[in-house]
Parts: sequence; C-alpha cells; structure tokens
Amino acid sequence: MSKLEIPRKAVYRLSLYYRALQRLTANAIETVSSAALSKAAGVKPTQLRKDLAYFGQLGTRGLGYSVSHLTQTLREALGTARLQPVVLIGVGHLGSALVRYRGFQKEGFEIVAGFDEDADRTRADNLGLPVLPMDALRAFIQERQVKLAILAVPVTVAQEVTNELVSCGIQAILNFAPTILQVPDAVMVNNVDLAIELENLSYFIR
Amino acid sequence: MSKLEIPRKAVYRLSLYYRALQRLTANAIETVSSAALSKAAGVKPTQLRKDLAYFGQLGTRGLGYSVSHLTQTLREALGTARLQPVVLIGVGHLGSALVRYRGFQKEGFEIVAGFDEDADRTRADNLGLPVLPMDALRAFIQERQVKLAILAVPVTVAQEVTNELVSCGIQAILNFAPTILQVPDAVMVNNVDLAIELENLSYFIR
Repeated sequence: MSKLEIPRKAVYRLSLYYRALQRLTANAIETVSSAALSKAAGVKPTQLRKDLAYFGQLGTRGLGYSVSHLTQTLREALGTARLQPVVLIGVGHLGSALVRYRGFQKEGFEIVAGFDEDADRTRADNLGLPVLPMDALRAFIQERQVKLAILAVPVTVAQEVTNELVSCGIQAILNFAPTILQVPDAVMVNNVDLAIELENLSYFIR
Repeated sequence: MSKLEIPRKAVYRLSLYYRALQRLTANAIETVSSAALSKAAGVKPTQLRKDLAYFGQLGTRGLGYSVSHLTQTLREALGTARLQPVVLIGVGHLGSALVRYRGFQKEGFEIVAGFDEDADRTRADNLGLPVLPMDALRAFIQERQVKLAILAVPVTVAQEVTNELVSCGIQAILNFAPTILQVPDAVMVNNVDLAIELENLSYFIR
C-alpha cells in the first residue's frame, strides 16, 4: 500500500482515532466497536470504517477492534512510533511559545533546535533549546536527517526560508506565516493561520 | 442574504482574498481581474468567482474588481471592520504566546482580558494584559458584550470551561485544547490542534 493512496483528510481522522484509542487504553478498555470508537473520535461510523479499511481487515465482526493492535497500526502509519526530530525556524514570540508548548513532545515530536537570524545566547538559555544561526541550518538538517520543519518567521522572509529548507531536504513544513508557500510537489505544507481562524469565527457571530 | 448561506470553507477563502487585496492596496493597485486576484490568493479563478457571487455583482466585465470596494465588502462580511473584543481562557505557555502574537490585532481582533484559575499579578504585568480569575468571567463577558473566546486550557477542563462560556453568551470559540467540544448548534467552534497538524505531515514524509 502506497502511503499516498490515503486522502489527506482521512489522515487527519487517523489522528482523531489514535487519540480516542489512547483514552480507551488509559481506561483499560481492550476492545472497541466501530460505533463506540467513531463516537469517541467525533467521526461518523461509516467514515471510520472506510478510513480503517485502507489498512485491510483490522476488526472482528461482532467483537470490534483490538485497542492495542489498532493503536499500534495507527502509530506506525502516522510515523509517531519513534520520536520525530523537528527544527523550528524563527524563534520570536510565536516560535518561543511553540517550544514551550508541551503538546508536541507528548505526541512524538521533538523540537531539536531553533534557528534564527538573531541567535543570541540569552534566548537559548531561557528556552532550554539550542538556538543556532541560519547558516548552521544545512549542516544540522543533513547530519540529524531532519525531515520536518516548523516555520514561524515573518511573512516577508517566509518564501526565501522555505526555498532554503527544501534545498536542505526538508519534506514537510508546518507553516505559521500567513502566506501561501510555493514548494515542489514532493514537499507537503500544512498552514496554521491563527488570524484566519478567528476571522472565520467572526463571520458567524451575530 | 443570510450569513449562513455561505459555506464555511468559502468563508476561509474570503480571508485569503481579503489578504491578497490588502497586498494590492499596499502596492497602490486600484483594480484587479478575477484571474490576478485568484492567483494572488492561491485559489482557482472559478472558485473565486463563485465565492464572490454570494455578494452580488461586484466586478465589471473587462475591468475586474475595484480593490477598495471589494476590500470594504469583505471587511464588513468578515466582521473585522471594527476591532473585535476577544477573551482568552487559560493563560499558560500557549495562552501567553497567543497574547504576545501580534497577528490577531493586525487583523482586527483585540484580546481584552485573560482568565485563569491562577490569576497572579506577575503574569499579568509581564503580558500587559489584565489576567482575571475565572469567577470574574461572566460579568466581564456580559458587560463588554464579548462574543469570541480563545480556549487554551488543559484538555481535562476544556468541556467544563466551554459550558461556562456558552452560558455566558459566547458565540464562537477558537479551541486549542486537543478535544472535540460539545456545544449547541448556534455556537461555532474552530479547532487548532498543532500536534495533529504535525502528525498529518509526519504521515507523508518518507
């Protein structure tokens, strides 16, 4: 099975199933019906069955899914079975906050270094993270075989930094700069634009 | 035209058009063709024409759109014509970062107060934002007629705090807690789950 056969939206739902399974594990539940799992994940049962069918026959009719087996299958698919190294580009207010945010590590991602035009010592000491100058980026990415980058630089330099990341071999970028990045087809970009999320909500309030 | 006739995804694209128009304004461009605007926004031309058709006849055939008129139309639709007050619930690492993040204010949103179980003085002084105890929430929201909340509390209390927000009259929530919030139909929730975004990218790297 090629990974790319699964639609991108389905991959988001795999994360929801994975979290729901983690809660079940915490509650010592060993098997779960597709109905119960879909409810726990907030996804329609038909959708869940369709999504999990990409992995072949996982459940047993009448018994449901093994929580531990399904957890393992999804963990491997999502690439969180090992701690993934991630580099952070841009260690300003937002970047620093992302370092302090504990959610990433918990889910299997480790920010291994920050890179910034202004890589001063004080900042690094406060964050407990090495903050390196931009010209150390290429050697670091190649030596540590980093594939994932978080981009938290000003919009004015976002594309230029992206080009550099791509040429260093980065395969996926979580982009916080409010702009559409141009990347080759083989590179994935997910955009998080906090202002757009608020604007979207604002539209619906009365 | 009822606001809710526009699909939610189209509203996201309105934000993209709005930003593209701001860039055109900054470059003193007065009119723009739908082809040029769609390219600047990173959206297909047919999609752009369909989205803008919700607002009636806005462009002139052969001339395109007036940048200032279209900007104004979208600003009013998106509710960013006036500065929108927003409350922040949970002033931990992530919440503090969101206060320091300058992107919201620029786009028409003002975080007017933070609320936290531990509303100590030091934290408030550092942030330049009043941080109030949770029991001050109801009076504040009602007095300032706040409709939008950003939720950055631990997942364990997210639903409880949401219930409180809804009962205070909050109409839309930008949720950073990695859980699916149960809310009445009239309340909108947008979820930002940073770990899920990384997981999604992780799936696609080799």
